[in-house]
Amino acid sequence: MGERIPCAIIGASGYTGAELVRLLSAHPQLELRVAMAKRAAGQELADVWPQLTGRVALAIEAFDADVVAARAKVAFCCLPHGESAPIVAELAARGLLVLDLSADFRLRDAEQWRAWYASPEHPAHPAPALLPGAVYGLPERHRAALREARLIAVPGCYATAAILSSAPLLAAGLIAHDGIVIDAKSGASGAGRSPSASTHLPEAAEGVRAYKVAGAHRHTAEIEQELGLAAGGALAVLFTPHLLPMSRGILSCTYATPTRAADFRAALVDAYAGEPFVDVLAPGKLPDTAHVRGSNRVHLTAVHDPRTNRVLVLSALDNLVKGASGQAVQCANLALGLPETAGLEQLALFP
Amino acid sequence: MGERIPCAIIGASGYTGAELVRLLSAHPQLELRVAMAKRAAGQELADVWPQLTGRVALAIEAFDADVVAARAKVAFCCLPHGESAPIVAELAARGLLVLDLSADFRLRDAEQWRAWYASPEHPAHPAPALLPGAVYGLPERHRAALREARLIAVPGCYATAAILSSAPLLAAGLIAHDGIVIDAKSGASGAGRSPSASTHLPEAAEGVRAYKVAGAHRHTAEIEQELGLAAGGALAVLFTPHLLPMSRGILSCTYATPTRAADFRAALVDAYAGEPFVDVLAPGKLPDTAHVRGSNRVHLTAVHDPRTNRVLVLSALDNLVKGASGQAVQCANLALGLPETAGLEQLALFP
Amino acid sequence: MGERIPCAIIGASGYTGAELVRLLSAHPQLELRVAMAKRAAGQELADVWPQLTGRVALAIEAFDADVVAARAKVAFCCLPHGESAPIVAELAARGLLVLDLSADFRLRDAEQWRAWYASPEHPAHPAPALLPGAVYGLPERHRAALREARLIAVPGCYATAAILSSAPLLAAGLIAHDGIVIDAKSGASGAGRSPSASTHLPEAAEGVRAYKVAGAHRHTAEIEQELGLAAGGALAVLFTPHLLPMSRGILSCTYATPTRAADFRAALVDAYAGEPFVDVLAPGKLPDTAHVRGSNRVHLTAVHDPRTNRVLVLSALDNLVKGASGQAVQCANLALGLPETAGLEQLALFP
Amino acid sequence: MGERIPCAIIGASGYTGAELVRLLSAHPQLELRVAMAKRAAGQELADVWPQLTGRVALAIEAFDADVVAARAKVAFCCLPHGESAPIVAELAARGLLVLDLSADFRLRDAEQWRAWYASPEHPAHPAPALLPGAVYGLPERHRAALREARLIAVPGCYATAAILSSAPLLAAGLIAHDGIVIDAKSGASGAGRSPSASTHLPEAAEGVRAYKVAGAHRHTAEIEQELGLAAGGALAVLFTPHLLPMSRGILSCTYATPTRAADFRAALVDAYAGEPFVDVLAPGKLPDTAHVRGSNRVHLTAVHDPRTNRVLVLSALDNLVKGASGQAVQCANLALGLPETAGLEQLALFP
Repeated sequence: MGERIPCAIIGASGYTGAELVRLLSAHPQLELRVAMAKRAAGQELADVWPQLTGRVALAIEAFDADVVAARAKVAFCCLPHGESAPIVAELAARGLLVLDLSADFRLRDAEQWRAWYASPEHPAHPAPALLPGAVYGLPERHRAALREARLIAVPGCYATAAILSSAPLLAAGLIAHDGIVIDAKSGASGAGRSPSASTHLPEAAEGVRAYKVAGAHRHTAEIEQELGLAAGGALAVLFTPHLLPMSRGILSCTYATPTRAADFRAALVDAYAGEPFVDVLAPGKLPDTAHVRGSNRVHLTAVHDPRTNRVLVLSALDNLVKGASGQAVQCANLALGLPETAGLEQLALFP
Repeated sequence: MGERIPCAIIGASGYTGAELVRLLSAHPQLELRVAMAKRAAGQELADVWPQLTGRVALAIEAFDADVVAARAKVAFCCLPHGESAPIVAELAARGLLVLDLSADFRLRDAEQWRAWYASPEHPAHPAPALLPGAVYGLPERHRAALREARLIAVPGCYATAAILSSAPLLAAGLIAHDGIVIDAKSGASGAGRSPSASTHLPEAAEGVRAYKVAGAHRHTAEIEQELGLAAGGALAVLFTPHLLPMSRGILSCTYATPTRAADFRAALVDAYAGEPFVDVLAPGKLPDTAHVRGSNRVHLTAVHDPRTNRVLVLSALDNLVKGASGQAVQCANLALGLPETAGLEQLALFP
Repeated sequence: MGERIPCAIIGASGYTGAELVRLLSAHPQLELRVAMAKRAAGQELADVWPQLTGRVALAIEAFDADVVAARAKVAFCCLPHGESAPIVAELAARGLLVLDLSADFRLRDAEQWRAWYASPEHPAHPAPALLPGAVYGLPERHRAALREARLIAVPGCYATAAILSSAPLLAAGLIAHDGIVIDAKSGASGAGRSPSASTHLPEAAEGVRAYKVAGAHRHTAEIEQELGLAAGGALAVLFTPHLLPMSRGILSCTYATPTRAADFRAALVDAYAGEPFVDVLAPGKLPDTAHVRGSNRVHLTAVHDPRTNRVLVLSALDNLVKGASGQAVQCANLALGLPETAGLEQLALFP
Repeated sequence: MGERIPCAIIGASGYTGAELVRLLSAHPQLELRVAMAKRAAGQELADVWPQLTGRVALAIEAFDADVVAARAKVAFCCLPHGESAPIVAELAARGLLVLDLSADFRLRDAEQWRAWYASPEHPAHPAPALLPGAVYGLPERHRAALREARLIAVPGCYATAAILSSAPLLAAGLIAHDGIVIDAKSGASGAGRSPSASTHLPEAAEGVRAYKVAGAHRHTAEIEQELGLAAGGALAVLFTPHLLPMSRGILSCTYATPTRAADFRAALVDAYAGEPFVDVLAPGKLPDTAHVRGSNRVHLTAVHDPRTNRVLVLSALDNLVKGASGQAVQCANLALGLPETAGLEQLALFP
């Protein structure tokens, strides 16, 4: 098979980091050589992630860009926004292919970043000079650019589901730009590994709730950016995330107004013909997150409601795979000239 | 306390029947004397419902209207639609107060029933003569009529959440009649006690999916009827139900277009002032089904999204209590002249 | 009904405190008047516990024994061990009936407390003078003493299940003192309200594990004390707790060696005849925690394995009710001369 | 890689069949060519298993031994006991390597089969002549024989966990033959794909219960057979299975009496040195089913309780992988002379 390309994970103690370990372990051409994290530095990876016991022997190191550059050609950054950009800048400066799973390079406009992500610690974008070169890592929308990219901003989990649902219909002029409503439901792993009241099993196991409603959730910004590109003009969406009593999975339901009569499902079939990871379901079938769990696939469909003349687009994906780490590997494959599906062919774990 | 009023449950082997047993056992003025069911007839109630072991000693009998009339003054019918109406007719003819938890008397128009509920077995409404006298059992909308009612059609679980969310805003002219979207999420007990693939734990425990989308779910009819009454004119809604990996609870998210600037949450506060079971949450708080589990309460709130000028109304309830059996008891209290909250003051079971 | 007896909860921000609020709200003769907690002081109880919204209006106060004594006659202490004893001492000195839900007064011997519970902060029992007067709050074993008690040590959740399983068989001489093995499984609410890695939903929702194995769990001490009393001589048990992906419930499986042929289930039936909260299941039926959820009941049974000549005793209870707060109310009822079942007649919430 | 070996799955509509599809799809040397099932014959595999949408295009056929023989060299039989043996006989007669996932060839003695598995339909073993040639498919115990085998009886899920826990300690003479107690906990997928009351989510999601206690569970027979072989003499165990509210995973806790002081964990380390799928955890760590989910690995450890002089062996595995289909592939690899780990290197899906 030839020599494998050495990779680093920066931020290996979080869920997207762990998922990258899992995916890279099954990748025929990429190989994990460096795992870094702040608090966990010094521990064995398998001490932080018991599922790696007996399988992955690698010590977690503190971040050092020179060390990464010496031992890897590809870096996956799994850090919080604000914290990620400076590290990405260091790695990019050393010539690595960087896949940033944070939000820092998803918005093309530094001003947008400031509006949605600024904090006392990070009042402005930490590395605006890199923004023009960054590519939004959604292969179904930016495949050509990704083949040339050296800095890839991997989309948010909700954003992936929402954009894949509406972009083709907007691009085809089949739905109105106004009034798009996205009601999305996520498993608790989307909230990360830090225990909190909202993910405390005794309270979360039998409840469902919305959070960050009415434009408060930051994925709104990247959804609007990408749907605006598809539509050929700025638009605003209403996005409502919900937290469900399960570990993985996002189900997104988009409501839109048709511009004219059409077979919306067929339009999705056309749009995604040849896509290796997108399945438009047969008429009458509806997506279920359980059917994509652990895989890089998206199940979606569209249904028209004749009574109210609305179109619904339903999509399901695994927030940690197609919604994060799997998508990062897919983008890396493209940027490295590897087969796009390399390392991503695992079937979903069902039941 | 005086003598207690004898009650019967017809359909005691399903979830709403069992929930009525639980609620009546704690009711100071009602007393369960008769439990009937078809297949389970002859068994002890506690054999069918192990949670009653040592507490409820009552044999399940086959249905007989004369027996019910001889031993009870109030009948709760927990039967499937189509099957319920003839039995309700028999009981009503014998002078009982009847609370029908099926859909048979929810729609005022027999033609609407035919359009949504007809089947080869029941091609037309089985007892249309009773429709004019039936009252839709949502006390927050029909309290006065319920005090005089002898046949009460207890609303559907989704319908209760949806109607309580929008009706006051429609009645106040604060939201447009067009374009109402209701995205609702339910626990699996809403599907009833019969095991099925969609509620088989190995497949359902880690998945979420929509079902009966685009106008296919029958609760659409009663939602439209009641919201139309509130709005003062017919309207159509787009209703999407989802099945979640939990046992009880419904979270409903309604999207609507304001007719003018307003404090929508305050409008709900006004509308529900004095309501014993409806809590409009404080600003910044959002409902969670875990907080109403096992209780007859509804938690709700409204939030305006200034970016898209939409209003969201979020509501949470327990589908088996305020969404079914608790609401039935609340209606019975009204019709019997008892305190409306009698037997319904149990706090939610949380965590 | 006469005047209600005023009660205080010290430690109202934890699960056993919240469960007491729920149970007291339904109690005909006890009334919650004082809620105290350290960190939550100053907040409304309903801000800490959203399920109380619209139902319980009480502000949480910082602990002050004089305030408690001025406004309550009964105090439920829901504090961690070590921290509880000094507060119990203050309250007992002021003449209140005290129900301590911590472990501080469960072990009769201060030396045993030191062996199992000592810490740098609390190297010795903080109030040993009170130990002789404390009664172990398991009504099925100590009812007469509880009627006279002023300081009641409410048993641990696992301990309640384990003791009720074996004590009658030991007392009847039907099982050997040696070799008792208790394999118990608990929902995550037993771990309390503080979020932690082990109860973080994404990791806990699909896993089961044992913890504190091989004599490391502190409930071992009280199980041995109480089973020793039943057996008439010291004995040692092997106790293994497990954490399950659910909120409430304990299922305990005890393995013991018969001393002679007997009908072990019938022996349990005899032992628990007249007990208001213990149900020995009919032959062929096995307990399930779902059937006792939210109730103060214990379902149990015994089965003999002829192949290995062992007897199994299986018991199920709700760790927050019969395993904590419900048992505390049951004990309070006894000590106050009220009907033992007052406020505890709610049926289990099933499904 | 050379040509891949063609495989058939008989019984492709059940969970072990689906899991084989998943594992074979990632296997470098085996290839699924034939999928057969009774009721689902004529459907596409992806219609029965939505997780295969867009990935596996294969129609399900009715069973025909000649068709299997014409198109495959290896057959995985995923049928119920009794039903499996005649089909295995047909396939074996045609020279295929057969991996039988039913219980039909696990017990060496046809009389034992009759005692545990006989039914009115199958009063005696349907193919006793094949029993002498069948090998019990637990590589850690029978690797040499499996390399020569043509008919392999893949062990039961509980049995795998139980045998791997005790066999090395029995073989080393470190634990007594008498008094072994196995308390095991399983996810609901072990009950198969047919919906039933015991796996109906509304009732099962918040409950735990034991079932088939006191020698009633059939895995007892194979556990005793294999532990007897390890011990060098017949023995009886007490095995108690429990059903948990989760999909996959078995946690087994074995209680045994030491014959002498020893480091039991170290004995397991020695016994499993070089084993590709068994991880003896470091001291202080305990197994969790979440850490092996979706993988072929077993996590286990032993702990001595000095207070009662008992040894506990705790083991965790995925019932559908190492407890069924993964083990079948591992055995097939051995019998075919392939690398034992081929196709089985996927890491667990965690969280």
